[in-house]
Amino acid sequence: MNTSTANISVTKVTNSRLAEVDFDNLTFGSTFTDHMFVCDFKDGAWHNPAIVPYGPLTISPAAKVFHYGQAVFEGMKAYKDDNGEVFLFRPEQNFERINKSSKRMAIPEFPRDIFFEALHKLLDLDKGWVQSGVGNSLYIRPFAMATQVGVSASPSDEYKFIILLSPVKAYYTGDVRVTIAQKYSRSADGGVGAAKAAGNYGAQFYPTNLAREKGFQQVVWTDSNEHKYLEEAGTMNVFFRINDTLITAPTSDRILDGITRKSVISLAERAGIDVDVRRLAVSELVDAANNGSLKEIFGSGTAAVISPVSAFGYNDKVYDLQKQDDSYATKFKQQLMDIQYNRSEDPFGWRYPIAND
Amino acid sequence: MNTSTANISVTKVTNSRLAEVDFDNLTFGSTFTDHMFVCDFKDGAWHNPAIVPYGPLTISPAAKVFHYGQAVFEGMKAYKDDNGEVFLFRPEQNFERINKSSKRMAIPEFPRDIFFEALHKLLDLDKGWVQSGVGNSLYIRPFAMATQVGVSASPSDEYKFIILLSPVKAYYTGDVRVTIAQKYSRSADGGVGAAKAAGNYGAQFYPTNLAREKGFQQVVWTDSNEHKYLEEAGTMNVFFRINDTLITAPTSDRILDGITRKSVISLAERAGIDVDVRRLAVSELVDAANNGSLKEIFGSGTAAVISPVSAFGYNDKVYDLQKQDDSYATKFKQQLMDIQYNRSEDPFGWRYPIAND
Repeated sequence: MNTSTANISVTKVTNSRLAEVDFDNLTFGSTFTDHMFVCDFKDGAWHNPAIVPYGPLTISPAAKVFHYGQAVFEGMKAYKDDNGEVFLFRPEQNFERINKSSKRMAIPEFPRDIFFEALHKLLDLDKGWVQSGVGNSLYIRPFAMATQVGVSASPSDEYKFIILLSPVKAYYTGDVRVTIAQKYSRSADGGVGAAKAAGNYGAQFYPTNLAREKGFQQVVWTDSNEHKYLEEAGTMNVFFRINDTLITAPTSDRILDGITRKSVISLAERAGIDVDVRRLAVSELVDAANNGSLKEIFGSGTAAVISPVSAFGYNDKVYDLQKQDDSYATKFKQQLMDIQYNRSEDPFGWRYPIAND
Repeated sequence: MNTSTANISVTKVTNSRLAEVDFDNLTFGSTFTDHMFVCDFKDGAWHNPAIVPYGPLTISPAAKVFHYGQAVFEGMKAYKDDNGEVFLFRPEQNFERINKSSKRMAIPEFPRDIFFEALHKLLDLDKGWVQSGVGNSLYIRPFAMATQVGVSASPSDEYKFIILLSPVKAYYTGDVRVTIAQKYSRSADGGVGAAKAAGNYGAQFYPTNLAREKGFQQVVWTDSNEHKYLEEAGTMNVFFRINDTLITAPTSDRILDGITRKSVISLAERAGIDVDVRRLAVSELVDAANNGSLKEIFGSGTAAVISPVSAFGYNDKVYDLQKQDDSYATKFKQQLMDIQYNRSEDPFGWRYPIAND
């Protein structure tokens, strides 16, 4: 069936796959809903925004994305409350960030009205895929990529902007053990670390594999010059609680301006917790671990929300963290999820209603 | 027609597009030959190596290459001499380098025997696309990319290894003006700069656009820590001739181990020219330009072979270079092309015969 509302054409599936999905056994990011959004950039403008059945693309092997990694993405989630209403969390931030990422990667910015209309239409169509219940959500993956044919290293003239939806459970199960980077690095000053550029992630796979072989799930990256200061983990920003002060690295052109990160800072400040946004030296972290003042480490990110870190490795030593009765990680995770799932007030106006059953 | 020799299956086109091609008006890397090579990695091994008609791929929008830039490539060329014999230039180096790049990007290495057999079969089939005449060549683009479906940031379990062939003329026409990076950077210590990882190239498009707006074609990157030392340009290594000494940056995990670069060093050493492989400070370059000891700058790379630089920009000043009667750039370019096109002896054993008419 082909219908058109406003500017986005909609082609619905004839048979939904929803009934076939085992929502209790989802692998993160590998199941997709019935529909996706696709829009093409050509001749200097975005054309033909369309919602179509989720399915494969037909794309040239010479498309620039394969050769030059000219691609950016975002990660968002939709949450359903007990009344069947579906909410996003601060989607304006994701919209602004993908365009910031695009600019750094020489990709044309995407129009605000099409972005939000696409989300509304897509979520309305596939709202049955958003499961209620805390921990369940629909992961939303907007991305843009270079599709022009050409194996010469210059910006593409053609792009696709796509939004995929994937039902998920929580990203991490259990606590996370991290290792502090001493050899490899994630990004350079003047580089693309602050952008959600595709290549930033692939570049971390090898060092992360080495970390996994030693029993750590993630790497906490340090500055590439000296490996002296703590920056971020590959899929999350990182917070350190020393005594009762919460410390996290300032954003820069190396560090992603995380939406969960800035939300945690707002929640902490509202609670009267001292938040110190500054560079934390690895040596200071080790000292704090040794003298007992290091209370918690946790990661923040859309996929993981809040991930408590149970141990960190450095210089072949492992530093275990004790569980805290008044854990900030637990408190902020609860507060964030209460807002996301419409179980509490929304003092900052972060909830964004988008569809309902 | 489906035939199989050794392990690589071959499906030929029914009608060649060769007669339609205007070889005098080629845009670099945008015309492709009749056939391509494709091989899939799945369940821990490379399977089904095949030569098939060049054409689009059918690929999931959730394939990891689009989201995480897990992809690497190589650039090689085939040259035809006046007798119709087709040669590659040091292909063993490209083979070793793509596997080195793959390792850094957590991509499984590709088998040597399939790589070379694929090149032999593909070049034999499409040898009519290699035009004789100095400057004409067939650009060869092997690449590997992550094809597993999944929007979670972890290495793919599935990959495609593809080889495309593209008839080309010389990459640059005329001299190149470069600007020295003072704000943006290309790679970090401990990063993926030494790998031909897709994302390294897309990351340079924006700063290169800024340079183009100021009249420069390329950026010469400097160290990301202090922007104090000269490293490489985005698609070529860079050589500086001060008096009669040839200076180029040492390879590192930030700088690509260029095959043309190492060939130039060999040619220079054979000619008794002093070659100084060391970090050259920007300040030293500016001093040399001011006192007249800077004779030449040139880039080296497979696409461009040797690109003489006619001017460099730094601190909003432009330093023009005078043409040299005894230009090293001209000499090395001639010597390299004489070897590549089988017009001279091959003292280093760089020529690799692969097909003939």
